[in-house]
Amino acid sequence: MKRIVLIGSGNVASNLGKALKKSGHHIIQVWSKTLANAQELANTLDCEAISDINKVSADADAYIFSVKDDALLEMLKAFPLKDKVLLHTAGSISIDVLKPFSAYYGVFYPLQTFSKQKEVDFREVPILLESSCDKVGELTTELAHSLSTKVIQASSEQRKYLHIAAVFSCNFVNHLYAVAEGVLVDNGLSLDLIRPLIQETADKAMLHSPKEVQTGPAVRRDMKIVNSHLELLDSDPEIKALYASLSEGIMKQ
Amino acid sequence: MKRIVLIGSGNVASNLGKALKKSGHHIIQVWSKTLANAQELANTLDCEAISDINKVSADADAYIFSVKDDALLEMLKAFPLKDKVLLHTAGSISIDVLKPFSAYYGVFYPLQTFSKQKEVDFREVPILLESSCDKVGELTTELAHSLSTKVIQASSEQRKYLHIAAVFSCNFVNHLYAVAEGVLVDNGLSLDLIRPLIQETADKAMLHSPKEVQTGPAVRRDMKIVNSHLELLDSDPEIKALYASLSEGIMKQ
Repeated sequence: MKRIVLIGSGNVASNLGKALKKSGHHIIQVWSKTLANAQELANTLDCEAISDINKVSADADAYIFSVKDDALLEMLKAFPLKDKVLLHTAGSISIDVLKPFSAYYGVFYPLQTFSKQKEVDFREVPILLESSCDKVGELTTELAHSLSTKVIQASSEQRKYLHIAAVFSCNFVNHLYAVAEGVLVDNGLSLDLIRPLIQETADKAMLHSPKEVQTGPAVRRDMKIVNSHLELLDSDPEIKALYASLSEGIMKQ
Repeated sequence: MKRIVLIGSGNVASNLGKALKKSGHHIIQVWSKTLANAQELANTLDCEAISDINKVSADADAYIFSVKDDALLEMLKAFPLKDKVLLHTAGSISIDVLKPFSAYYGVFYPLQTFSKQKEVDFREVPILLESSCDKVGELTTELAHSLSTKVIQASSEQRKYLHIAAVFSCNFVNHLYAVAEGVLVDNGLSLDLIRPLIQETADKAMLHSPKEVQTGPAVRRDMKIVNSHLELLDSDPEIKALYASLSEGIMKQ
């Protein structure tokens, strides 16, 4: 059992905090710029909420910074304690950002998409670790194994590319779902009609290399269909351009 | 129980043929330009294989054309029988293409991605129907209900937009998975690391409107991360351009 302070109350902090608590760890404080946000998460985690970082408890095994990437450096600068174990949860930020603030630091990056609407099964979430020294290495490894069956050491460099891959396969994929929903709703149809298709497409990627199971007009080089779709999208130049560039990408592959 | 001739032996024909057989229908012939392909599917369906369309049996309740969209008209022209029930399975082709070849025609469009590598649970596949007359309407409705719990009447116009939505949420999504795999493999990493993320992203779309659960640097307008990703993709201008345009799309939404 570790004693943890969570700096942040967003999607990652919320999901991580709940998973840590469920695994028997003790979250002793949650910090958020907005006290109400800190309080909301603190209520779930049964701990203290703070919005003044100077009130942070000195008595934790680790301080997990899970704030917007933009805000991380600012928070580190404001953090009043010395030589504590500092961890961040950001895919795209180097471990080195922590160096000026402690001798004990590391990265604890859960590679998953988190939202407050849906709780995630943490056992299946890959957690990517990096640490400044053995002490932090042991602590993060123990923490990660208590949450997940998938614990991986990865360098800051590898993590950046992992984050890019995550953006493509999650954020951008979700945007395409949203585009599809827009097309359907504009024509009096519902996303329900293509939900089985969304599910099957993901299921297929669980078992196969996506390149090898590509389907649709572009991979068949069925230009009659591709062109008829482009024509139908004439009224929305951006969606049309997206259709054209993705079709071209598929044909090149 | 209906007697069916399948014109085509590709992904849709194979999956549809197997589902029809499983539901108690009798596939009496499979046609393919290449006899070996027809034979392979015919073996599974326990029926005759032909590659000469003039050998098509006159004794079927319906002839399902499930060939490349490009090849459909050509096949219809070569089809030697008059006034049979002709159905096509193409999302983007109007019902009218069938009109010159019979008084009895319709569309039987299973909205799913089919590949030979993975069998699909047809009970969950939306089947979109359109018909020239009541006789075909009744036949296709009966056939569709014997396969799936999701049977929908849709006009050719609606079907076109459905097909576009399907291309975005399946074919284009799968392409993004492939791009992600490329980024990972180029950096000594495996798609396995992001498979849970792919699954979760699809799961979330089952329950929510995608727009409302968008995550990632673009929707947070975290330009520091967006720009650092663009920089890392400098060596691949096409992937970089795709990243830029998808991020812009998310920010605009």
